[in-house]
Amino acid sequence: MSKNISLKKKIPVGILGATGSVGQKFVELLQDHPWFEIRALAASERSSDKTYAEAVHWFMKKPIPPDVEQMRVSACEPDLPCRLVFSGLDSSVAGEIEQRFAENGYVVVSNSKNHRMKGDVPLLVPEINSEHLSIIESQKFGDGVIVTNPNCSVIGLVIALKPLIDRFGLDAVNVVTLQALSGAGYPGVSGLDSLDNVIPYIGGEEDKVETEPLKIFGSFDGEKINNMQIKISAQCNRVPVSDGHVECVSVKLKQKARRDEVITAWNNFAGVPQKLELPMAPLQPIRYYDEKDYPQPRLLRDVDKGMAVSIGRLRECPLFDYKFVILSHNTIRGAAGGAILNAELMLHRGYLS
Amino acid sequence: MSKNISLKKKIPVGILGATGSVGQKFVELLQDHPWFEIRALAASERSSDKTYAEAVHWFMKKPIPPDVEQMRVSACEPDLPCRLVFSGLDSSVAGEIEQRFAENGYVVVSNSKNHRMKGDVPLLVPEINSEHLSIIESQKFGDGVIVTNPNCSVIGLVIALKPLIDRFGLDAVNVVTLQALSGAGYPGVSGLDSLDNVIPYIGGEEDKVETEPLKIFGSFDGEKINNMQIKISAQCNRVPVSDGHVECVSVKLKQKARRDEVITAWNNFAGVPQKLELPMAPLQPIRYYDEKDYPQPRLLRDVDKGMAVSIGRLRECPLFDYKFVILSHNTIRGAAGGAILNAELMLHRGYLS
Amino acid sequence: MSKNISLKKKIPVGILGATGSVGQKFVELLQDHPWFEIRALAASERSSDKTYAEAVHWFMKKPIPPDVEQMRVSACEPDLPCRLVFSGLDSSVAGEIEQRFAENGYVVVSNSKNHRMKGDVPLLVPEINSEHLSIIESQKFGDGVIVTNPNCSVIGLVIALKPLIDRFGLDAVNVVTLQALSGAGYPGVSGLDSLDNVIPYIGGEEDKVETEPLKIFGSFDGEKINNMQIKISAQCNRVPVSDGHVECVSVKLKQKARRDEVITAWNNFAGVPQKLELPMAPLQPIRYYDEKDYPQPRLLRDVDKGMAVSIGRLRECPLFDYKFVILSHNTIRGAAGGAILNAELMLHRGYLS
Amino acid sequence: MSKNISLKKKIPVGILGATGSVGQKFVELLQDHPWFEIRALAASERSSDKTYAEAVHWFMKKPIPPDVEQMRVSACEPDLPCRLVFSGLDSSVAGEIEQRFAENGYVVVSNSKNHRMKGDVPLLVPEINSEHLSIIESQKFGDGVIVTNPNCSVIGLVIALKPLIDRFGLDAVNVVTLQALSGAGYPGVSGLDSLDNVIPYIGGEEDKVETEPLKIFGSFDGEKINNMQIKISAQCNRVPVSDGHVECVSVKLKQKARRDEVITAWNNFAGVPQKLELPMAPLQPIRYYDEKDYPQPRLLRDVDKGMAVSIGRLRECPLFDYKFVILSHNTIRGAAGGAILNAELMLHRGYLS
Repeated sequence: MSKNISLKKKIPVGILGATGSVGQKFVELLQDHPWFEIRALAASERSSDKTYAEAVHWFMKKPIPPDVEQMRVSACEPDLPCRLVFSGLDSSVAGEIEQRFAENGYVVVSNSKNHRMKGDVPLLVPEINSEHLSIIESQKFGDGVIVTNPNCSVIGLVIALKPLIDRFGLDAVNVVTLQALSGAGYPGVSGLDSLDNVIPYIGGEEDKVETEPLKIFGSFDGEKINNMQIKISAQCNRVPVSDGHVECVSVKLKQKARRDEVITAWNNFAGVPQKLELPMAPLQPIRYYDEKDYPQPRLLRDVDKGMAVSIGRLRECPLFDYKFVILSHNTIRGAAGGAILNAELMLHRGYLS
Repeated sequence: MSKNISLKKKIPVGILGATGSVGQKFVELLQDHPWFEIRALAASERSSDKTYAEAVHWFMKKPIPPDVEQMRVSACEPDLPCRLVFSGLDSSVAGEIEQRFAENGYVVVSNSKNHRMKGDVPLLVPEINSEHLSIIESQKFGDGVIVTNPNCSVIGLVIALKPLIDRFGLDAVNVVTLQALSGAGYPGVSGLDSLDNVIPYIGGEEDKVETEPLKIFGSFDGEKINNMQIKISAQCNRVPVSDGHVECVSVKLKQKARRDEVITAWNNFAGVPQKLELPMAPLQPIRYYDEKDYPQPRLLRDVDKGMAVSIGRLRECPLFDYKFVILSHNTIRGAAGGAILNAELMLHRGYLS
Repeated sequence: MSKNISLKKKIPVGILGATGSVGQKFVELLQDHPWFEIRALAASERSSDKTYAEAVHWFMKKPIPPDVEQMRVSACEPDLPCRLVFSGLDSSVAGEIEQRFAENGYVVVSNSKNHRMKGDVPLLVPEINSEHLSIIESQKFGDGVIVTNPNCSVIGLVIALKPLIDRFGLDAVNVVTLQALSGAGYPGVSGLDSLDNVIPYIGGEEDKVETEPLKIFGSFDGEKINNMQIKISAQCNRVPVSDGHVECVSVKLKQKARRDEVITAWNNFAGVPQKLELPMAPLQPIRYYDEKDYPQPRLLRDVDKGMAVSIGRLRECPLFDYKFVILSHNTIRGAAGGAILNAELMLHRGYLS
Repeated sequence: MSKNISLKKKIPVGILGATGSVGQKFVELLQDHPWFEIRALAASERSSDKTYAEAVHWFMKKPIPPDVEQMRVSACEPDLPCRLVFSGLDSSVAGEIEQRFAENGYVVVSNSKNHRMKGDVPLLVPEINSEHLSIIESQKFGDGVIVTNPNCSVIGLVIALKPLIDRFGLDAVNVVTLQALSGAGYPGVSGLDSLDNVIPYIGGEEDKVETEPLKIFGSFDGEKINNMQIKISAQCNRVPVSDGHVECVSVKLKQKARRDEVITAWNNFAGVPQKLELPMAPLQPIRYYDEKDYPQPRLLRDVDKGMAVSIGRLRECPLFDYKFVILSHNTIRGAAGGAILNAELMLHRGYLS
């Protein structure tokens, strides 16, 4: 059990964009959650007033949970029977809808990119920057707030880099991603484009990988977040994999580091969610594997509820100091699971009461 | 027609390792070749004396050519009815067998790695270093010779880099590959390992990518090849694609280069095979594409008979000068087709008469 | 060269639905056609006035042919600079647009389902029922006509059955299909639904397979087509294959047939397109393979320009007389290539002058 | 908890062929089993004396369970520290090794085909023919016994047919399978053969589908099993799916049956494992789905621990009475899970004490 939390009854939550790719993952992960309970499923006009089973083209790897199958889908209007909403909305509409919910007193825990880089919105990774959460107190929404989590290709990278920054300092990062299809939402990439193919382009993704980490690693001075200065270069590719982003990373450190020191830094890494034993927190946020051909998506994406970051192949680099390979589950750690962890931290900090 | 070549009759050739992955591609590409004609198919003991149709597990994208279907498979012994042999042998046996053929007066045009890095063996890419061919005159095999072509993940890279070296100079290269299944031979990677997966490791591959280019770009002083000094770092991955290696490259140049100058250098690049109009030569060795999500294997691997290198997404890099994406066909340009081009150059230079 | 045809200049043609899946295949196959020349590319409002390169999301296995890349896309209005149009329109709009073109004097050679089953519209497979073409003389469109070809899952089946009907008679057919993604158009099936999956349902497809053959094999009495009576049961599945429909067929014949007689009937089969040597006609419409694990899509879909039907695994059936496996290319023989063959027959019969 | 079973301590078990495809699944499924505990992992000479982690090329979808990782692999000799062994041996060696174990007093619960059709060996599906188990009393191995489960493509079919036989009688079955890669073992089908392809042939499989059900449905008269007479015709295909066999079935029943009666018969079906609440038993052996495009492998293969059979698309057939689609997990219900269920039944019947 998580420390210090004993709820009389579960907190009702709503899901915005409940029929989409991330929305479905929220539905899946919130089954049997010890603190949260789905009470509202909201989606576009087209879906509203249908049952969830009618409205959704479900494509998770297990069937729709029976208790949400017959729930009615609502419109994305701020009259849902809950205060906490998870947003898996498409970025084409998320900006405005999330703001409206916040203005109407809702706590919006969002996976969308729209508000991520705003000064008073935390871009939260509880293992890394839980102190950034306090910045929501400067938000201008009255009782409402907006909290965000990073892009699915950023999360594995920043978790892997965090112990290196803490221990050795970090100057530069080169990263080439091999990203799963589920990162593109549903229907996303056509089967005709993805079969027997690589698409070496994902719109807007490289910019996110090069900028979001600077804010995530930024220092919070009580008033604002001051970005960290690291030089990052990213190349992003779509590959025919269902779930699990692989990233080939090269890093230039500030201090010399032995190979075993780096591995120890990763394996020993733990953050606030581990100390608080938050329900969605991985037991061990980073796992280093010695196998020569690890980490592979098929084998390791689901480790520790899909919330752990797997790393392998650490070796010296002729150009940088070290190179290695990261794997993380893009729709769990990189989307819905990360957002739920954010909400758990918020509950713990008293922001949900 | 190619310049200056008029043969009274075609030159008989043999294929060593004819039932393997590269061997099959040799069979496919040598159909209707204007200069060469398959007269011998050699493979391991297990296959010999069977017809080719019986011995091979054919998996090219078109059926076995009718005229080789009933040909008898020979053992890999130097008593084949030809002087020129193409070798697609597995590296576990190629070293010894190829040497035996050379010692018995055969011209061995090999795709295997075994002899590539030897001082008196040219690692030949006719568009880049056709002058290296002369080094075979210092080989100690009597009438026999051995000529090699680079690893399938190296060829696209070195062709893309050549115009940059010539025009701007090159200091450092970072490359992450997304390599096709056919590069692993047959049966190669299990369907269970490749479906819905990335394998972030290919045995020995990163070392080849980091070292072979240095010899390929080396200067030949009449006696020996002097390696060029470039720093290269490689990370190699296997992805579920049938043919066509994608490579995400970052380069540090010696001189400033404008983006349009780089593209022009690529599109205008031509080498000896183009001047000689060799049959297997691509009309244009490098093609740059403006489409935002090119080059993709499904669309471009077969451009110009599978012998062209496709490039796209040239953009500035926060760490290096430029980054871009390369695609080349690994079993044509990167294996059998490259070897045939080498033989064509040798014929032109008088080494096959 | 085809018999008896010598054109002073090529016939200009238009493509309706030129940016879609079948439209792209028309563009690809009409390159270098000896009789036809693309003069108009028509698509929905959204595309019109763009260049073809701008309007299309091209996904054929080779790049866009250079001579159509910069052609302007027109609206689907009957003011195109040609009389012959090939239609690859989606069935949601094809019915009305094709009719409007016919009413305005165009010859519409359609791949859509909308007019297929109408009494005065031939459902044409030139190898099987070329005499049905004459029924267009009873159409009420003035100078205009509509001719159709069958559904992509029907064409391989009817060609395979034709020699059996002619030689042994046919009572009943059970067929289970394993259909390629390209049969669903573009974007068609999501990559997330097709990867590592089978979808055992294709809307409307089973009905087409059970009914279209009855008309195709019908007898034309000079006034109308009288359906043949065969009992057919179909089950249709979508599998993760790019091109090439596989069908597992069981047949009950009217007369006893030896296995070798069946194979001979298939291999010797030829029809009007073969006699006339039409440009798009396969040299041999049916090829039977003895290999125990043929026909496979990867190996045989492109045989004879993608216009041949491959058959294998003929064996006795405990329930029916025989069972066997068929393969045919769904977007060539089963769509654009079949339509072009129809137009070639029409030219030969004088309907295009 | 299962009824009537309370063990003082878990029963030690061994796995024969522990590094193979089925062997790995045994390892995975026996984790945390309430009655059985892995004490021996046996494999070929090549593996023996290595740790399991060294010997195995693990490819399950989760990492190797930590408690077996460092276990030593034994040779397949009858000196293992247990009496019960599960066999996932390849059929090339299973016949002899399993017999040797039985002759030495071991209880062999096998997934291999070698002994399946022998008169005194039960081909056991506990939901269907638990009474067949008694036939082991006539085996001639002294204290040892051999019990088998059906081929992976047979199990889903026979479970789906059982309620039809009981309720309506069954005359004839036509079945076309779309089988997953894992059914071929490891490495099994090459990635180059499986990508973008269907292989319409699986050696020996059609014969098994046409004969094993006759024994499974046979009546046991106390002395021998009398096969049931049903006419079955099968066509078997390999498709690029990791796990989960799909089967398109047509049936001719002895009595008229309304569609709703058939569905009710399936949904209400339960057998001995359900009554005994055996740990591996699915709660509901058959689940019928109304969704128009179900059952799909990605969505339903893991339902009820991978032990349930999913059915969909029941509709009338123009040739037979009904047609429908089955899905079952081939390496769980169709291999290791089925064998474990057999052992659970044996424990319950007192054969393991």
